[in-house]
Amino acid sequence: MLDVIFLGTGGIMPTRERNVPAIALRYNGEVILLDAGEGTIRQMNAAKLSPMKVDRIFITHFHGDHYLGLAALIQTMNLWRRGRPLHVYGPKYTFEFVRNFLNSGFFRPGFDVHVHELGETRLKLGDYEIWSFKVEHGIPALGYVFRERDKRGKFLPEKLAQYGLSEGPILGKLEREGRIEWNGKVIRLEDVTGPRRRGVKVVYTGDTLPVERTRLFAEKADLLIHDATYLNPDDRGEGYHSTVAEACEVAKKARVKLLALFHRAFRYSYEEYSEEASRVCREYGVNFVVPRDFDVLTFKSGGFSVRNVLGEMG
Amino acid sequence: MLDVIFLGTGGIMPTRERNVPAIALRYNGEVILLDAGEGTIRQMNAAKLSPMKVDRIFITHFHGDHYLGLAALIQTMNLWRRGRPLHVYGPKYTFEFVRNFLNSGFFRPGFDVHVHELGETRLKLGDYEIWSFKVEHGIPALGYVFRERDKRGKFLPEKLAQYGLSEGPILGKLEREGRIEWNGKVIRLEDVTGPRRRGVKVVYTGDTLPVERTRLFAEKADLLIHDATYLNPDDRGEGYHSTVAEACEVAKKARVKLLALFHRAFRYSYEEYSEEASRVCREYGVNFVVPRDFDVLTFKSGGFSVRNVLGEMG
Repeated sequence: MLDVIFLGTGGIMPTRERNVPAIALRYNGEVILLDAGEGTIRQMNAAKLSPMKVDRIFITHFHGDHYLGLAALIQTMNLWRRGRPLHVYGPKYTFEFVRNFLNSGFFRPGFDVHVHELGETRLKLGDYEIWSFKVEHGIPALGYVFRERDKRGKFLPEKLAQYGLSEGPILGKLEREGRIEWNGKVIRLEDVTGPRRRGVKVVYTGDTLPVERTRLFAEKADLLIHDATYLNPDDRGEGYHSTVAEACEVAKKARVKLLALFHRAFRYSYEEYSEEASRVCREYGVNFVVPRDFDVLTFKSGGFSVRNVLGEMG
Repeated sequence: MLDVIFLGTGGIMPTRERNVPAIALRYNGEVILLDAGEGTIRQMNAAKLSPMKVDRIFITHFHGDHYLGLAALIQTMNLWRRGRPLHVYGPKYTFEFVRNFLNSGFFRPGFDVHVHELGETRLKLGDYEIWSFKVEHGIPALGYVFRERDKRGKFLPEKLAQYGLSEGPILGKLEREGRIEWNGKVIRLEDVTGPRRRGVKVVYTGDTLPVERTRLFAEKADLLIHDATYLNPDDRGEGYHSTVAEACEVAKKARVKLLALFHRAFRYSYEEYSEEASRVCREYGVNFVVPRDFDVLTFKSGGFSVRNVLGEMG
């Protein structure tokens, strides 16, 4: 099960309702952060999400609204006497920028902060992988893919019966070793299980113009969180952002199951934006959401559900 | 008239209700910031306070909760095409820290940022002065005094009549020059005006243990905003903060008119803290408030009033 928790969904200008970008992925007890705009620790506190569960933070690029929450997060971990190292990932210049940031006040973390400067790469991290890919934002900028490992199919009772196997240690051995000898026969795991189940795939572009790399990396994703700052390409000016229609086009080509329209500009109200997004996405035949701060998308056995954690807390 | 707008009243840990420290002084159309914790721009947006009105930011010390909002403030000013220079003041190391902070991402302001490293000093800034004084927080740390210039007394109609003066250009000349010749006599401004009116004086300690310097600089202030993190000295541990009783003692000795108990620790609820503060301040005979985020104290002709701007905006 994977929770995608939208901690901040706004563009550069935080308002009372919306903070600047930060997305938390909660998976197997770990919290992975994609971007950490200013005030992310406050959003995490409001969402009752402990920074102590965070081991990895992925920054898409070094514009203030995407990374300025990093120092307070690290400071809070320190205050709570963290011992475990923290990993911070980002594009070119991440070393220099994080070092300067952490040298901007009286502050020395009591744990290791490992900084990783990434190109396009694939990180294998236990039950999931993170892939980075280059996007186009006028400065070094990355998108990220969270890819859960595929899982074996379920044990099929009729097959187990056929081979004379029953629940217990022998199935554990079969799972661990992939094959066993049993009653003089070799039994392979795939002989007694159903089809492999695809892991969840979630893609976050950060800020970007529409690019071919996104289509490639987002292929058949369960969720694509795409920059969709503008409704109208004329509003873009010289900025390196996408429109709702451009995000839809990428989503359609990549055959993603769900598109989250992200980084909505300050100038549009939620209602105005949602209405137009609804029209555009219908044209493209794309399933979409316009996430609000504290919305949570939960992915579980092929489907997903939406709720808002702030509402729940009253 | 001076508005003291509490943008963030919390200690190090921001919650849904309270952000980290920032206080805005609104005076004659200018907004002066005392501290700018992470998320100050968001608080200003919520309070409908434009960062473009800010020409001077005074940082008490370089712990994250007091300065990490600086970069986003400057970034926002830049986005809005500010031309006027900005002045940032702080204690020792302010040069180095601000430089590192502004070099932590892709960001080059299109206006000058003048950084001033202060000891104990007195800055004359038009109709008001800012004084800095050293406090005790284990690292270089300053408190600040806002001191409005005293104003001349009001013109007294019976005195004007006595000297044969009437409203008009001649009174403007008297005001500008301090003395005039009229009907062969020298008339001084003080001959025809009432007693001088004391300007408003507001003092902010930032984080500190109780120190004698505060008493000295806060003498007869209209408002003393004092660190009052703890209710009980045993909670202090090795931290350099004050208790409510210590803040009261300073306020009493300095004969301040009103004490704002600031930087309340995360662990106390507003109710628990206010109740105990009420008991302690009564013992000391000190007038006090426990400001909440977005509370505004307005000082006007010797008195003050309290309101909450967020409530007003609904």
